[in-house]
Amino acid sequence: MELWYTEKQTERFGITAKIKRTLHTEKTEFQQLDMIETEEFGNMLVLDGMVMTTEKDEFVYHEMVAHVPLFTHPNPKQVLVVGGGDGGVIREVLKHPSVEKATLVEIDGKVVEYSKKYLPTIAGALDDERVDVQIADGFMHIAESENQYDVIMVDSTEPVGPAVKLFEKGFYEGISRALKEDGVFVAQTDNPWFQQELIQTVYKDIKEIFPITRVYTANIPTYPSGLWTFTIGSKKQDPLEVSEDRFHEIESKYYTKDIHRAAFALPKFVGDLLK
Amino acid sequence: MELWYTEKQTERFGITAKIKRTLHTEKTEFQQLDMIETEEFGNMLVLDGMVMTTEKDEFVYHEMVAHVPLFTHPNPKQVLVVGGGDGGVIREVLKHPSVEKATLVEIDGKVVEYSKKYLPTIAGALDDERVDVQIADGFMHIAESENQYDVIMVDSTEPVGPAVKLFEKGFYEGISRALKEDGVFVAQTDNPWFQQELIQTVYKDIKEIFPITRVYTANIPTYPSGLWTFTIGSKKQDPLEVSEDRFHEIESKYYTKDIHRAAFALPKFVGDLLK
Amino acid sequence: MELWYTEKQTERFGITAKIKRTLHTEKTEFQQLDMIETEEFGNMLVLDGMVMTTEKDEFVYHEMVAHVPLFTHPNPKQVLVVGGGDGGVIREVLKHPSVEKATLVEIDGKVVEYSKKYLPTIAGALDDERVDVQIADGFMHIAESENQYDVIMVDSTEPVGPAVKLFEKGFYEGISRALKEDGVFVAQTDNPWFQQELIQTVYKDIKEIFPITRVYTANIPTYPSGLWTFTIGSKKQDPLEVSEDRFHEIESKYYTKDIHRAAFALPKFVGDLLK
Amino acid sequence: MELWYTEKQTERFGITAKIKRTLHTEKTEFQQLDMIETEEFGNMLVLDGMVMTTEKDEFVYHEMVAHVPLFTHPNPKQVLVVGGGDGGVIREVLKHPSVEKATLVEIDGKVVEYSKKYLPTIAGALDDERVDVQIADGFMHIAESENQYDVIMVDSTEPVGPAVKLFEKGFYEGISRALKEDGVFVAQTDNPWFQQELIQTVYKDIKEIFPITRVYTANIPTYPSGLWTFTIGSKKQDPLEVSEDRFHEIESKYYTKDIHRAAFALPKFVGDLLK
Repeated sequence: MELWYTEKQTERFGITAKIKRTLHTEKTEFQQLDMIETEEFGNMLVLDGMVMTTEKDEFVYHEMVAHVPLFTHPNPKQVLVVGGGDGGVIREVLKHPSVEKATLVEIDGKVVEYSKKYLPTIAGALDDERVDVQIADGFMHIAESENQYDVIMVDSTEPVGPAVKLFEKGFYEGISRALKEDGVFVAQTDNPWFQQELIQTVYKDIKEIFPITRVYTANIPTYPSGLWTFTIGSKKQDPLEVSEDRFHEIESKYYTKDIHRAAFALPKFVGDLLK
Repeated sequence: MELWYTEKQTERFGITAKIKRTLHTEKTEFQQLDMIETEEFGNMLVLDGMVMTTEKDEFVYHEMVAHVPLFTHPNPKQVLVVGGGDGGVIREVLKHPSVEKATLVEIDGKVVEYSKKYLPTIAGALDDERVDVQIADGFMHIAESENQYDVIMVDSTEPVGPAVKLFEKGFYEGISRALKEDGVFVAQTDNPWFQQELIQTVYKDIKEIFPITRVYTANIPTYPSGLWTFTIGSKKQDPLEVSEDRFHEIESKYYTKDIHRAAFALPKFVGDLLK
Repeated sequence: MELWYTEKQTERFGITAKIKRTLHTEKTEFQQLDMIETEEFGNMLVLDGMVMTTEKDEFVYHEMVAHVPLFTHPNPKQVLVVGGGDGGVIREVLKHPSVEKATLVEIDGKVVEYSKKYLPTIAGALDDERVDVQIADGFMHIAESENQYDVIMVDSTEPVGPAVKLFEKGFYEGISRALKEDGVFVAQTDNPWFQQELIQTVYKDIKEIFPITRVYTANIPTYPSGLWTFTIGSKKQDPLEVSEDRFHEIESKYYTKDIHRAAFALPKFVGDLLK
Repeated sequence: MELWYTEKQTERFGITAKIKRTLHTEKTEFQQLDMIETEEFGNMLVLDGMVMTTEKDEFVYHEMVAHVPLFTHPNPKQVLVVGGGDGGVIREVLKHPSVEKATLVEIDGKVVEYSKKYLPTIAGALDDERVDVQIADGFMHIAESENQYDVIMVDSTEPVGPAVKLFEKGFYEGISRALKEDGVFVAQTDNPWFQQELIQTVYKDIKEIFPITRVYTANIPTYPSGLWTFTIGSKKQDPLEVSEDRFHEIESKYYTKDIHRAAFALPKFVGDLLK
């Protein structure tokens, strides 16, 4: 039997993956959650019809959202991940020995539950003693935090459903307050082929709050266009001025010291979006 | 009516694009040639079931295969493109004023014919007076050339059908002879997610011939995985040691001076393939 | 290149056909018209995303909509086809020597034009001298006709777009007036697997106008469920009481004298719909 | 998440069904077995990539393969079903009070196991005390039986995998011996749109063994073309000469006394195949 999962990434284009079986399918309180076993990418988490992560290519997103800000900050101790219930970002965060506490605020407990069950190599880190998993609204958590975190990562879905407000300026202002003065913030900010307006708006909003705002990219095969952007903001730390000796050895499959810098060299049409 | 073109990029994964109409479909002497009008990517050339180029994202491939070697060479005058019948590489080559003659050797005249008809913004450059279009076997052309070219670009399909022999070591040896002593060579070398063995073999073969051999990448949404590799080889010129003043202004949408350098920073798993 | 046409016959089920090329695609004044060349069914006419007819299986529909009423009527001379711009019903009508004039009233001239061009074995009959092709609104034509026709066939699309009013009771009342007293009327009335409510409503409406109302079926592979219903109505003629000698030899591929009778034996769940 | 199951019923045509989840997938000793929950047809059993039965339309096949021969035989007591591990035919057989024992010989115990689990309204009958379920090779069972059965039904997959030998003449000869002198035999014999040669061969083979051989049809939406044929053979009993009083009331959704007769009226092109 040939069973194919097709995600229309736009109204007019998509990807299609042969699957072995569905592992779980559920309408949670917040979104449609599907876990499927694909032949090419292993187990795959799909939220509201959008691929979130797969066993084969998850390392790109998780390494790039975590290590760029963590190496940018000189001494990250308190780290917050908003969203990211699959645990992949937390796994990367824990590779930094300076981190004393990593807080995960995920709105949908089912994402954590089924990631632990079906994506153990990704979600296993959530059981680490340095990790505090809170099933709660990340937007509210940010609103109630002040001068608390060294690094905040926003690992959300695309701006659909519960994630819409995570792409609004008020949220970034909250992040600015939740961070310590020399803190660093990063958010995934979609792709530059089909979501140019979003990238522009988000960049403009963040730049009005953080004097240092930069965009970097990474290749993720199962995300629309294969090219993903991340926007990093800080009042003090520049990801392009990291002293050579700050980079320590970490186990990785995508991130390297050179990739850290090269990721900020944007294709001309992407750079033009930010002007 | 919804009509979708699906390319299985592997046995287990693919892309799917909504199309408006077929523009041309023909079994040529060498391959299946299809030209389709898609909604997301404009007109799309498909050879033997593989997307070759689309109006929307063609600039990435064409700029990156052309400008990296052309800026690496201090004074490229004689340029050869093997394959590339759609004319996109030639269009980029002509942006370099030092180029006196650009020779295109395409085995399938139908590719040239239908690219001119349906991809005029790409193939238009083929009518330039500095261009010599030859409908002939690129493998033979290379075998018969000696000490003739400053830069050779291999713009082939994946190693299927007429392109198989363009991925063999004997072909690269021919290229070494066809180039002048300080010449530069580049070939598209597929993607590192699904074609790791090919990348390794080709890199090893080229490295045994050219002391300076490097791999660089670019993001192409309609190619498998969205991440494409190119392998550049030379006896004298290092693409990473291009003096700052050599870069002149060219009109581009992807390539920049910074991208030139950043493209050689490989994701760790790609770099590991080459060890 | 593999190009597949997929028709979602319901929100949850459909057919998919490999195509060679699109032959024509146009938004006419009334509907989206697509003509595609399929590998399994030959040329295929698609209106508003629904398969209307294909070269391979068109004979079933056209024979069954035509011969059942024409053999039911003792001496059909004046025949009207509402819709049916592809000409297939007319072709079958002309096989009956008693027919003096066959009028086709098709609202969309483009259907006639492109059927003549791409479905010549179906539309060829439209050039016969006994045929009067009118590009006009069948609903209005019926409203303006009185006591004029021996047999009226309604060969419409499903009740979408311009065909909606052809499924309303007022239209059937008009048909009753447009027919001679002993006239016979037939309409295609969709399939009993996915459109049960429609069949029930239409049957009830027609039965209130025509004392003799019966439903019969035929197998059409490219129509939803493969089982199609037709509803026949008359004030005088009963399709189940046709004297044996009335059947004359006609060239056919589906219709036979036995099929004429057997088609009225309904699967129990279909018969139950009409109670 | 939209997950679609697509069955290519030929190389060039197929059906596609939206699914909710996979219920079970397993490579058994004999074939690939998949159970999926579809939105349009409920739970669906797929063997070697071919839809076997669905909750929504299973009644057609099961009633038609069972009741036609059972009403043809004047007093069926001993009934054998070869294949049919989903239990649907058995369920229909048990509706005939004359039946003393119904033997099911299914080669693949997994089909029985998972039908009981996921298709309880179909397979429930297998637990009836009149039923003898044997997990064994039907071909061998036939070879070892003599003068034993009143009615034998062959409910196999299409001639692929373990079912190939169930379409060979030697098998029909065995059935002839396994039947009592006045026994009746029926087999599903695929569809007349895409499998004309098979129908012709099987009809010819059976006709050489059984003086009375007839073909009848039924509409099954999820089978290729929607029109399915069955071939019935007997040395004594003619399905078209069943006396009126033999039909007793049975609970059914497709089969009726009228359908029994009408099913033998073949579309002309089907009848022509048998000449």
